Amino acid sequence: MPNDQPADISLPSFAGLPEGPGGPLAGLTIIELGHFVAAPHCTRVLADLGARVIKVEPPVKGDPVRTWGEHVNGRSLWFSVHGRNKLCVTANLKSPDGIQLAKDLIAKADAVVENFKPGQLEKFGLGPKEIERLSPGCVFTRISGYGQTGPRAQMAAFGVIGESIGGLRHLTGFPKGMTDLPPARVGVSLGDMIAGLYAAVGMLAALYERGKVGPDAHKEGYMGRVVDAALTESVFSFLEGCLPEYGKLGKIREPYGSTLPTTAPSDAYMAKTGEWFLIGANSDPLFQKLANLMGQPDLPKDPRFVDNQSRVKHVSALDALIRAWAATQTIDELEQKVGGEDIPSGRVYTIEDCTRDSQYLERGMIRTVEDPHFGDVLHPGVVPMMTGGPKGSTGGGVAWAGPAVGAHNDIIYRGVLGRSTDELARLTQTGAI
Amino acid sequence: MPNDQPADISLPSFAGLPEGPGGPLAGLTIIELGHFVAAPHCTRVLADLGARVIKVEPPVKGDPVRTWGEHVNGRSLWFSVHGRNKLCVTANLKSPDGIQLAKDLIAKADAVVENFKPGQLEKFGLGPKEIERLSPGCVFTRISGYGQTGPRAQMAAFGVIGESIGGLRHLTGFPKGMTDLPPARVGVSLGDMIAGLYAAVGMLAALYERGKVGPDAHKEGYMGRVVDAALTESVFSFLEGCLPEYGKLGKIREPYGSTLPTTAPSDAYMAKTGEWFLIGANSDPLFQKLANLMGQPDLPKDPRFVDNQSRVKHVSALDALIRAWAATQTIDELEQKVGGEDIPSGRVYTIEDCTRDSQYLERGMIRTVEDPHFGDVLHPGVVPMMTGGPKGSTGGGVAWAGPAVGAHNDIIYRGVLGRSTDELARLTQTGAI
Repeated sequence: MPNDQPADISLPSFAGLPEGPGGPLAGLTIIELGHFVAAPHCTRVLADLGARVIKVEPPVKGDPVRTWGEHVNGRSLWFSVHGRNKLCVTANLKSPDGIQLAKDLIAKADAVVENFKPGQLEKFGLGPKEIERLSPGCVFTRISGYGQTGPRAQMAAFGVIGESIGGLRHLTGFPKGMTDLPPARVGVSLGDMIAGLYAAVGMLAALYERGKVGPDAHKEGYMGRVVDAALTESVFSFLEGCLPEYGKLGKIREPYGSTLPTTAPSDAYMAKTGEWFLIGANSDPLFQKLANLMGQPDLPKDPRFVDNQSRVKHVSALDALIRAWAATQTIDELEQKVGGEDIPSGRVYTIEDCTRDSQYLERGMIRTVEDPHFGDVLHPGVVPMMTGGPKGSTGGGVAWAGPAVGAHNDIIYRGVLGRSTDELARLTQTGAI
Repeated sequence: MPNDQPADISLPSFAGLPEGPGGPLAGLTIIELGHFVAAPHCTRVLADLGARVIKVEPPVKGDPVRTWGEHVNGRSLWFSVHGRNKLCVTANLKSPDGIQLAKDLIAKADAVVENFKPGQLEKFGLGPKEIERLSPGCVFTRISGYGQTGPRAQMAAFGVIGESIGGLRHLTGFPKGMTDLPPARVGVSLGDMIAGLYAAVGMLAALYERGKVGPDAHKEGYMGRVVDAALTESVFSFLEGCLPEYGKLGKIREPYGSTLPTTAPSDAYMAKTGEWFLIGANSDPLFQKLANLMGQPDLPKDPRFVDNQSRVKHVSALDALIRAWAATQTIDELEQKVGGEDIPSGRVYTIEDCTRDSQYLERGMIRTVEDPHFGDVLHPGVVPMMTGGPKGSTGGGVAWAGPAVGAHNDIIYRGVLGRSTDELARLTQTGAI
């Protein structure tokens, strides 16, 4: 009974588009109404795994993130990665023509991802009911600072605020009295990217469900899922046992600087050559190995360091000893000796160190991608890596670098939505695309 | 043709198990061969969304994470959250009987999640080929420090090492010369949890593909996907434009302390009452609002602060002015005044602040869960939140708190795998369960 099968809306109408990297999400169509970091990171991960992501941007300037970070010839290098594998079209959501284009795209989509302020898409006439009407069962994936509901839903929030309200910023610093500096920012848009991953998990979970309930689901009252990922809550969900520990014992977790509070030794030590080196020799056998390397094999017999509990209690004395030893070693010596004993350890990598790392190189994590604007550009590889799947399939990849604003207007608006050349000229002139 | 349908292995044999929280992943069966943080975080997120997660632990003591953090009556409060919604069984993977139990469980699973050292499961006879043989199409989801392949695959790695090799630790500190302290650790197992999320995305992507290719896929050479999520690479994928910027311009991104390098003002300022308060007034209109609040409405006309570029150049002078003003305000005043103007801002929340936050409370992020061991315990809510789905469905939830070691041995080994009471007594006696 072919009429009972899900309409495969993807294949016929999307024919002729550039072929993506393949991967497990090949055939999945996602419309990104995103900007800045959170929603675009969500779709970058999904596009890396083969999803067809159509990114809708304001005409001319596009996503503001295109101007962030270092530039070459007026273009941001970050966007080469952030926009990779995506199809980029423009549509002015403040114009009826632009809204209509967005609606026509959504009608062909399995999922929509957005990170406008809550309520903004409703103002454009693109709320959940309209999305469901346009594409029954479509997963509407919404990312925001505080979530779609609640007293502070409408409040402005950037990533740094999300990390702070999420409770993570407080834990990223040194104990009181050690310094008068505030807790440091993790130097990337951490909250945005964590929220982007939670949104991706939510979207794929909803797609799993939709596939399972099958094509007749709507007859039984199935509604497309609305996924509501908040930056604050995504970060908050990373707080381990902090919440039950506070609730039961009144314990407020405080920052511990560069150490771990419950286990020792685990800290950053400076090499003779000036670089920081992490050592996590925080089990009895690992500590014995480290003590041997330090030429002090009897250290684990010292009552102060005899077990983890004792070591934690006397961590200052212990760290002073390790610090003194580390200061006699070059960073290469530390890496070879401590790593050679299979003690968890490593230098604190800069991006330059990353590019020279044999493991990253071997696993294709540092790859050269041809970018029409920049020429050869370094891109990180696909995470997670995958094998298996259909015969001859890939685990995703990088098919192309972040395209220019509106790069795919013609091929999508003419080829997929059937607009005429004249119509596109008119839409360009009126600023709708 | 019922024989062409996928065998619904879940429903009959899993009948009688406690009902999970429902949600989009209801009906999905995952075996967790995990310990510590990464794999259990992956499955916690999936179990929150309704997946049936069967956690396999070593007999008697179980997952070492059960002893981490604060305890009440010998049990870790963290595990109340970390193990919630999961079914907990024991199996000694070093004994043939234990391996057999694991195999029998895997034969009923849609996915396996593990975070042993690469190669360890192969030594137990549970490599990818065996998983595929036991459950064709099963998604084998592997999390490790450095990945399953490459020269350093076998090396020990903890979360802190992953964050360091991933390039994030270097960015979590202050510029050289500001302090002689090392870059701070983000005070949670950040790399583990990010890798857990990437693993969840990979698994669900593979399940989407499996659902799409359908039940006859194996006849065409389809193999269950092996997902390979590395801590280092998961963190590395968060580095925004660092890699292309280094590759093209040789730029090595350095830490910026509590500020943002490209935009100002955005920093942490101390209130009169001693708490840190974040303000991100880094656009012209936001900065004007802040200047008004500070009683210095002409500040944006000062040539040093006239636009973002100028403000970044003179950020020290600007931050000194804001710091001086903030020091005259209590934390409550800052919150009301700056937040009241819809300037992105917020206090640096401790866990106590989180529990009092009206937005968290309204959205069910601070919830009381009945734990048989502790009584009422505070748990974070489910992330992401979801509405829609099948009529009457939930978006996931918390059905029960982290169970005791082997809490579900009887109901699963007898009820699901059909072992006899005598057999279970023997397995207990020999230490297999």
